[in-house]
Amino acid sequence: MSKLVSGLREAVQLCGLRDGMTISFHHHLRNGDFVLNMVCDELSDMGFKDLTINASAIHEGHGRLVEHLKSGVVTGIETNYMGSAVGRYISEGRLKKPVIFRTHGGRPSDIERGKSHIDVAFIAAPSSDCMGNCTGKFGPSACGSLGYAFADAEHADRVIIITDNLVPYPLAGFSISEVHADYVVSVDSIGDPAGIASSTTRMTRDPIALLIADYAAKVIRASGYLKDGFSFQTGAGGASLAAASFLKRLMQEQNIKGSYAMGGITGYIVDMLEAGCFETLADVQCFDLRAVESLNKNPRHREVTASHYASPTAKSSLVGGLDTVILGATEIDTQFNVNVHTDSRGYIMGGSGGHSDTAAGAKLAIIVAPLTRARLPLISDRVNCISTPGSTIDVLVTQFGIAVNPSGGDLALRLSEAGLPVRDIRDLKKTALEISGVPKPFAGGDREVARVLYRDGTQIDTIRNAAV
Amino acid sequence: MSKLVSGLREAVQLCGLRDGMTISFHHHLRNGDFVLNMVCDELSDMGFKDLTINASAIHEGHGRLVEHLKSGVVTGIETNYMGSAVGRYISEGRLKKPVIFRTHGGRPSDIERGKSHIDVAFIAAPSSDCMGNCTGKFGPSACGSLGYAFADAEHADRVIIITDNLVPYPLAGFSISEVHADYVVSVDSIGDPAGIASSTTRMTRDPIALLIADYAAKVIRASGYLKDGFSFQTGAGGASLAAASFLKRLMQEQNIKGSYAMGGITGYIVDMLEAGCFETLADVQCFDLRAVESLNKNPRHREVTASHYASPTAKSSLVGGLDTVILGATEIDTQFNVNVHTDSRGYIMGGSGGHSDTAAGAKLAIIVAPLTRARLPLISDRVNCISTPGSTIDVLVTQFGIAVNPSGGDLALRLSEAGLPVRDIRDLKKTALEISGVPKPFAGGDREVARVLYRDGTQIDTIRNAAV
Repeated sequence: MSKLVSGLREAVQLCGLRDGMTISFHHHLRNGDFVLNMVCDELSDMGFKDLTINASAIHEGHGRLVEHLKSGVVTGIETNYMGSAVGRYISEGRLKKPVIFRTHGGRPSDIERGKSHIDVAFIAAPSSDCMGNCTGKFGPSACGSLGYAFADAEHADRVIIITDNLVPYPLAGFSISEVHADYVVSVDSIGDPAGIASSTTRMTRDPIALLIADYAAKVIRASGYLKDGFSFQTGAGGASLAAASFLKRLMQEQNIKGSYAMGGITGYIVDMLEAGCFETLADVQCFDLRAVESLNKNPRHREVTASHYASPTAKSSLVGGLDTVILGATEIDTQFNVNVHTDSRGYIMGGSGGHSDTAAGAKLAIIVAPLTRARLPLISDRVNCISTPGSTIDVLVTQFGIAVNPSGGDLALRLSEAGLPVRDIRDLKKTALEISGVPKPFAGGDREVARVLYRDGTQIDTIRNAAV
Repeated sequence: MSKLVSGLREAVQLCGLRDGMTISFHHHLRNGDFVLNMVCDELSDMGFKDLTINASAIHEGHGRLVEHLKSGVVTGIETNYMGSAVGRYISEGRLKKPVIFRTHGGRPSDIERGKSHIDVAFIAAPSSDCMGNCTGKFGPSACGSLGYAFADAEHADRVIIITDNLVPYPLAGFSISEVHADYVVSVDSIGDPAGIASSTTRMTRDPIALLIADYAAKVIRASGYLKDGFSFQTGAGGASLAAASFLKRLMQEQNIKGSYAMGGITGYIVDMLEAGCFETLADVQCFDLRAVESLNKNPRHREVTASHYASPTAKSSLVGGLDTVILGATEIDTQFNVNVHTDSRGYIMGGSGGHSDTAAGAKLAIIVAPLTRARLPLISDRVNCISTPGSTIDVLVTQFGIAVNPSGGDLALRLSEAGLPVRDIRDLKKTALEISGVPKPFAGGDREVARVLYRDGTQIDTIRNAAV
């Protein structure tokens, strides 16, 4: 009674993988992930061609994937986020088939509705028993939540569990259960713990980021949402984390008992849980080892599936009850549309992740970003790529002032009355241009290299090849 | 942001329930359950007709269902177990459509494969938030595991959560998540705690049951399966529980570290977990309040879905790894076929539950039963109803001796060598008849009143109306 096979090759053979099929991966091991590269190398050795990869995210550590794109082992990519290592290759227009970008909520929604079929799912599991009861909560490569992998496990035709920590059957603390697992492969290592906890979770000392964070916390206070029952998500960027830290102080001073924080969880959010700022954490992804440890030990810190987190077609999901989210942006336009997919030269270096999901769900969606970066202005008349529609963004916070979406009712008034520097987004744009100068107009190509699907599955934008 | 509606009636209306549809229930509140009656009464008041009830079990407390069968509100029943309150009515041949009996593993398998469609699932939830994140682990009507309800929640078109303990959103310790819930109904009480923990979980003092239990424990010891890694299930009947108690002593004396116990869990099995006899408990149903408390507090005591427990079409399930199960019987024949559906007069008073699932999965399936009951013999030439095929039963243990299935290899020899009173099952039958006299031949009717589906969905037997 065991699903353990001799290795990856045998598991792939037993699954009946064929050229042209779709394989899937989750990204909870982040930059420390070994599994996507390991599997693609093996499939290349086995002579497979024309595979499509559906990965919840593709990180910088997956640069080797470019070799498999060049050789035709992989000819299609579907993902919610793509780092620049692979993004550059895509933006150079070198992959025939456009990349499909989804969101963290849209991906499980499409998988569950049968709109995005997975033939074989490869699930990196920090601990598993021989039948595939597995979890990310402990083990030498512990990554915490396996939130993004549930839809793959539940709906792929075949599921291969890859682990470097085989434990006795049955693993009581399983996240994904054996009912979904076809084969189990034991390997030396599924990831580098140092890369699993990303450096983005360090607190910033940048005075501009701290100023922005201070404003963001004050925006939340002035908005009226910061009261008992408050729910919150923030990203792992410097200003976002600093804002959480300021918010914690505010909540403690005013003895505000929030209900939940959600999303990608950092140690800073764990601190807020333990300090009584929140009753529970709903964790779809752990950003650092403190979050991993907390998820494993604290029953009020709960792993949730990506569907529970943000699916637009689930009967409900956590984003629907969200009061406030703090998000980043690489670019925002005067209609408040946000770009997190491409850089200023049009190269892919990111993706929606849960950006548009949480913006759509939250009552107050705040963008925090410095007004200029590397002498390039944050604000334009039209973003190069709409990742998140402006209709779902409420406030932009920069170090030079705060712009409120005109659709936001009396929010601008509330912020002004609280003494915050509210400015028209077009004025902020002018300031940005005064500092940075007018940037060279973006000269993209004509070739469609990626389609950006909004969380409901409709195409919200197209990414074309960047100037070479 | 709430799925809370004014009451059951509004929830039913919003779900679009229509005559002829199938509604479902789980039985974790056992004899204390108020929800099945409450819903049927309401649907009767609303004028519904021709509904089919798919319930994981129908207990004695559901006798009122007979009124709804008489009036035509309910015209079909599918279940894994039926107590005599409703069973008598069915056996009298008074319901036109035959009852469909499944097993605890076959039911979720059929639901998941689309062979058994549920239009509206009614889920009794001892605690729920306003969005339907719910659990049985705590609350005034705590019942512990909701194992049987997962398939209903995941696959019914509409899901109504009925709770008497509304908790703040989000309930971190949910078992079933909001992604499946359509509406939440708050009621005064979903059940009577005194009925939830059935009296069957009391330890027996009956000397015959204790003798049988002693034999059963010795059979397990002599079988060779009782070693480190041992896995075990037992029912909640007197002899089964006593056998667990004797087994605990054996395991402690010999310092045997088992791996897991599974199935319906009692306080006696919790004792074995805490005494180090097992590493983990896989709990599909709690039989008493001590089990409920343990499930809520001990991370090594884990709730599992009915599919994980026993589905024959899941990629694997816990029954597949089971070493030994101890089961009861109302009747067994010389081919070792077991009847747990009907009594000696052919009246329905039970059902497979997990009987045939665990018998099929376990390496050693032991039946414990007194050789006669109320002057009726246990053993016949052909059981009135085959609940569990004899090919999956290894040993019958009675107070007058132990019969081993001839297909069991050298098991009979092992037991004899251990000094156990091994006898041919035909000899045991003779002894039974000597004690009880030859019973009046069973005179059943011609009318099909129930179909017994084996765990794989094939029909294994037919129950006809009993003599009136």
